[in-house]
Amino acid sequence: MQFQLRDYHDPDFSSEIFKKAPDATLAVVGQDGVAPDDYHATTIFPEYFKIDGEWLLAKQSRMDCAAVLEDGQIAVREFRHLKAGDQVVVGRSEDGSEGIYVHVDGFDDVRQANGETFVFRQGRNRETSFSMDYDSLYEQLRYEKDHGYIVWVLGPACAFDADSRTAFARLIEHGYVHALLAGNALAVHDLEASYKRSALGQDIYTQLTHPHGHYNHLDTINRVRQCGSIEEFIKEEKISDGIIYECVKHQVPLVLTGSIRDDGPLPEVYANAYEGQDAMREHLSKATTIIGMATTLHSIAAGNMTPSFRVMDDETVRQVYFYMVDISEFAANKLGDRGSLSARSIITNMQDFVVQTSKNLVNS
Amino acid sequence: MQFQLRDYHDPDFSSEIFKKAPDATLAVVGQDGVAPDDYHATTIFPEYFKIDGEWLLAKQSRMDCAAVLEDGQIAVREFRHLKAGDQVVVGRSEDGSEGIYVHVDGFDDVRQANGETFVFRQGRNRETSFSMDYDSLYEQLRYEKDHGYIVWVLGPACAFDADSRTAFARLIEHGYVHALLAGNALAVHDLEASYKRSALGQDIYTQLTHPHGHYNHLDTINRVRQCGSIEEFIKEEKISDGIIYECVKHQVPLVLTGSIRDDGPLPEVYANAYEGQDAMREHLSKATTIIGMATTLHSIAAGNMTPSFRVMDDETVRQVYFYMVDISEFAANKLGDRGSLSARSIITNMQDFVVQTSKNLVNS
Amino acid sequence: MQFQLRDYHDPDFSSEIFKKAPDATLAVVGQDGVAPDDYHATTIFPEYFKIDGEWLLAKQSRMDCAAVLEDGQIAVREFRHLKAGDQVVVGRSEDGSEGIYVHVDGFDDVRQANGETFVFRQGRNRETSFSMDYDSLYEQLRYEKDHGYIVWVLGPACAFDADSRTAFARLIEHGYVHALLAGNALAVHDLEASYKRSALGQDIYTQLTHPHGHYNHLDTINRVRQCGSIEEFIKEEKISDGIIYECVKHQVPLVLTGSIRDDGPLPEVYANAYEGQDAMREHLSKATTIIGMATTLHSIAAGNMTPSFRVMDDETVRQVYFYMVDISEFAANKLGDRGSLSARSIITNMQDFVVQTSKNLVNS
Amino acid sequence: MQFQLRDYHDPDFSSEIFKKAPDATLAVVGQDGVAPDDYHATTIFPEYFKIDGEWLLAKQSRMDCAAVLEDGQIAVREFRHLKAGDQVVVGRSEDGSEGIYVHVDGFDDVRQANGETFVFRQGRNRETSFSMDYDSLYEQLRYEKDHGYIVWVLGPACAFDADSRTAFARLIEHGYVHALLAGNALAVHDLEASYKRSALGQDIYTQLTHPHGHYNHLDTINRVRQCGSIEEFIKEEKISDGIIYECVKHQVPLVLTGSIRDDGPLPEVYANAYEGQDAMREHLSKATTIIGMATTLHSIAAGNMTPSFRVMDDETVRQVYFYMVDISEFAANKLGDRGSLSARSIITNMQDFVVQTSKNLVNS
Repeated sequence: MQFQLRDYHDPDFSSEIFKKAPDATLAVVGQDGVAPDDYHATTIFPEYFKIDGEWLLAKQSRMDCAAVLEDGQIAVREFRHLKAGDQVVVGRSEDGSEGIYVHVDGFDDVRQANGETFVFRQGRNRETSFSMDYDSLYEQLRYEKDHGYIVWVLGPACAFDADSRTAFARLIEHGYVHALLAGNALAVHDLEASYKRSALGQDIYTQLTHPHGHYNHLDTINRVRQCGSIEEFIKEEKISDGIIYECVKHQVPLVLTGSIRDDGPLPEVYANAYEGQDAMREHLSKATTIIGMATTLHSIAAGNMTPSFRVMDDETVRQVYFYMVDISEFAANKLGDRGSLSARSIITNMQDFVVQTSKNLVNS
Repeated sequence: MQFQLRDYHDPDFSSEIFKKAPDATLAVVGQDGVAPDDYHATTIFPEYFKIDGEWLLAKQSRMDCAAVLEDGQIAVREFRHLKAGDQVVVGRSEDGSEGIYVHVDGFDDVRQANGETFVFRQGRNRETSFSMDYDSLYEQLRYEKDHGYIVWVLGPACAFDADSRTAFARLIEHGYVHALLAGNALAVHDLEASYKRSALGQDIYTQLTHPHGHYNHLDTINRVRQCGSIEEFIKEEKISDGIIYECVKHQVPLVLTGSIRDDGPLPEVYANAYEGQDAMREHLSKATTIIGMATTLHSIAAGNMTPSFRVMDDETVRQVYFYMVDISEFAANKLGDRGSLSARSIITNMQDFVVQTSKNLVNS
Repeated sequence: MQFQLRDYHDPDFSSEIFKKAPDATLAVVGQDGVAPDDYHATTIFPEYFKIDGEWLLAKQSRMDCAAVLEDGQIAVREFRHLKAGDQVVVGRSEDGSEGIYVHVDGFDDVRQANGETFVFRQGRNRETSFSMDYDSLYEQLRYEKDHGYIVWVLGPACAFDADSRTAFARLIEHGYVHALLAGNALAVHDLEASYKRSALGQDIYTQLTHPHGHYNHLDTINRVRQCGSIEEFIKEEKISDGIIYECVKHQVPLVLTGSIRDDGPLPEVYANAYEGQDAMREHLSKATTIIGMATTLHSIAAGNMTPSFRVMDDETVRQVYFYMVDISEFAANKLGDRGSLSARSIITNMQDFVVQTSKNLVNS
Repeated sequence: MQFQLRDYHDPDFSSEIFKKAPDATLAVVGQDGVAPDDYHATTIFPEYFKIDGEWLLAKQSRMDCAAVLEDGQIAVREFRHLKAGDQVVVGRSEDGSEGIYVHVDGFDDVRQANGETFVFRQGRNRETSFSMDYDSLYEQLRYEKDHGYIVWVLGPACAFDADSRTAFARLIEHGYVHALLAGNALAVHDLEASYKRSALGQDIYTQLTHPHGHYNHLDTINRVRQCGSIEEFIKEEKISDGIIYECVKHQVPLVLTGSIRDDGPLPEVYANAYEGQDAMREHLSKATTIIGMATTLHSIAAGNMTPSFRVMDDETVRQVYFYMVDISEFAANKLGDRGSLSARSIITNMQDFVVQTSKNLVNS
């Protein structure tokens, strides 16, 4: 199976309904961080706004934001970033009648084009057949490695197991990871594994608990903080394997965002959740494929700020894919239930997912 | 069944082992936020440090912190709060031989005292018999209402359901909530329910989705931000029911900590995760009973900073109880697995838990 | 809220499409237990078959069976019960064009009739608001107590907990249980509780394990087998409480079906799974409301043989309701996913469900 | 890592306690299927009974049965198989004092022998590191293929997915399956896949639902029943792949036990649950490694009748291993919680488990 992007077609702006539509209405922000009444909230879909008779596409979108007219372009901005004086689109119709058009079906449906009439079974659970999903994901990642931007969102469990940790490190090494979003815990557990061969004091292969093992965790954090940065710690302690090590070695951007569960934290961690969101969005706005694994917090956060499409440098519009890998149906399907993104869920233990994916991509 | 605290007995410091023990060794912090080598890390248990021949109890403890000698007392401090020049206890023995004694069995075991030899079945799951846990919890909360400090840690789901939201509001109204720890989402969903009768646009009783319902969520946040505070929003919009409303009305402290999943956030939310931790710990260090419901993030965070005991104003030492209510065994048992606290898990949908608890406490 | 049945309207057989339709085709069974080629398989909906120019409703239906013409009526029969010579309807169209009409929307939708356009959120999970479901279920059970036939399908966990066991016993006592379907384990655990106050040797209230407690389970089974029947055991051992006791006392039919997990079994248990199915169907074909709790095996089995409607003695057609109570979304939603019945799932620990339901129905 | 069996050491019968012990007491069964008062119930461990001054090992044991003296040997028999006149061991001490000795620690602990003092973390969940378990399982299966008897207990989900179905078929083909225990559903879904490329009408690779797909399931059952046996169906329909096909081709014994959820059933299915148990036990009493996957019903049933040891033909005693693979901690750990067997749980989607296991064993 060859991975193939669906074609995107623009709305037919020559049709009467678009021509007759009024310009979008703008209102001025009166108070920092607060939108004017009747503001339009963006969605995950491509959206067009009629400005001075022209339909402008908001290029870097995400849901639940305000549409701000700025330098003749539409910027999509979180409410907290609105400034007094910003010009914000108002109106809640999405069919063009208020100068706002949400394009929900811009990508051609290949199956329908082939005249197939089969229907997908609703809902995905542990008994869904995942063979095809794996195969198509492998194809896709091979394509994206060179033509896209692959963002991984990682829960701490990936570092608890020797094989999954190594498998993910190899994916980084071979170019399948363009940015890594995670929390303090993933980095701490992985560095503990590099430094002490344990995670929370338990050997990541033999499952045996080291004597005074709980100190391994704290000692790792303390030592990194003493070094002043992860990079310096790696140098001083001659760390030579692991997820974080490979990120540093291959200059893969690493965004670590803090939470109230953190010990430490490591020096690189964003303490401020909203500065963390900004750093995440910077990478997600470039992403073409995102894979969230074994973390509800970070995956949902990523899903919330990821649109269903991306405008490439050559102005073509392409799909963005989101995979959610989790052992719990509730967690894996949560993005879909919130309507925040058309995410494909894979219900399994991420250890197996990442080991298999790595074997297929790196060895073949 | 009458709720009864277990007696606490001090270590027998007159015994030879304690008398012969050396003073605890102190080392000086050289770098802000970094502990000296071989630092001692605290646990959830009462810990005694021999200083100038005297055994001092660290009164406000929590696990995974440094023990700092300060004004003749032992302060238990997160590493990030260490300052250059602080005097920190070093040594990793816990049996007194290095002047550090961790008192793991200070509370008399009532059952053993009665000569009972029955054994508890290991592990708690959906099939555990919870009748006794409910009954003893009710007794305990009646006691704690007047003699203790009850801290609730709440996930957003409590505001999704009309009955559980009302049930919790009544608990606040009747004095069973001394502090509430939660995230931005709990507050937003609850205020949306007060303001629009929906949560994420869905009616919290009829389950029907309101037209343009997803705007209810954003409109609520935007309006609170416009008002500048939750309290002002309640006043201006004449809010008259709900969890947050009752907290404000009855001056129950509300600590809202931010996360990367947040929309908004509301003005009161701590953006900085570690300032949020400090605010949480302020209440948890006073707590005698903590109940975490349907939130892994906030409950584990709370568990991490909660000791197994509290020193009361009259210098007596009493137990601290932690209940973890979750529908997932994995989540509910996680605190126990990490060894961070002796938490009792109750495996159910928190809607039912809170409705029943409220009926039993408030109506009887 | 007053419980109200939806009206049922017959298909409009005066319309051209029904009048022009041919009689249904019949084929003769050639081999016991095997349907002829192209057999029609029944669904959960009311189905009409044109026989000699008349549209006959199959009155006691269930899905995945053959439609047999017998004495001028349509009997709905499992394939294993077909006999050589039986006349079976063949044809796989469901729109009348082959003399077979499946009436999928026979019940008026009250909400639509009110002109409401709200949309139900898809999927039900732990965060669904269940308040309305509880309230409407209580109303419904009060109605069904006198006007319907309430069948409960019970997993063993109900007998593990003192309060849920008592709560269910009170529902029986007060007439809310017209038949009980369960397995050997439910009966064994409940009788052990009556006989020894334990379940699998663990006290159902204090959670303490009795000395030699695992013998309690085996001793109970052995004693019942010695007595020759549950009823005789109850008499000889002077049993005076519990689920099984109340069934016997109030002559509530009890169908116990065997499985390969059973110890014993008790004398009343159906060893043959398919004879067990027949016994279950006898009650399910009379059922108007079915509640499956904490058992996937028995609930799915019941769901498979339950139609969405029942023809009452006065020939009116009414809806049949199916509730599925389970702590796992996967289990609770499974009936819906298989399309076997329009089941309403409630995601919680059944202990809480049954305690609350009993309190609401029995005390008010 | 080389797979290595632990040595077994007999109890030291030369010691005083064994020499002074009385002969075991025997009582006569008075009523078919009922044990005499104070019967001894067997466990999963090797058990010795003093008969005429000799300590006899019960060679084919399982828990919760009676010990019957017969032809000078101890037979371990389910209560339902007891016959009036049988001589049954009575007494509930397990330390030899009543002539009954349960040998709980007969296998040398290799780790302890090496002087290791590490402690295993309690409980296994989704975050347990499973790398070592996989590696040791692969080693073990390579050994058992030639020296043991490997029994698989399979849930229906294995046939829902193209890759896992093929992977398991290859394990059979290459000799890693000595007996297969499953239900009607596994066989039906697998044969539907062979016959129609779907499971319950859904393509097992593309996930698309076939037109009139639900008939695929029923048509498969009907056709097998028409053929009179699975073997005849395979011949007549020229079936050439799948799990059942490989079992038939390689003469791997297949025990299909019925349940109340079954459609059909297929001709080979045991309708009587207890005859099914007997057929299962026949294979389990020979088993040296058992792997239960994605079925609670069949795995627990198998676990209940599997001892922790097997007496080989040369009279040596060796360990029996039980693996429980399930995506739910509750299900995977259930055997351990019931104390029925020392089972090792692996928490993941069985699709991934079986695909990886097959790749490692068959390709290497």
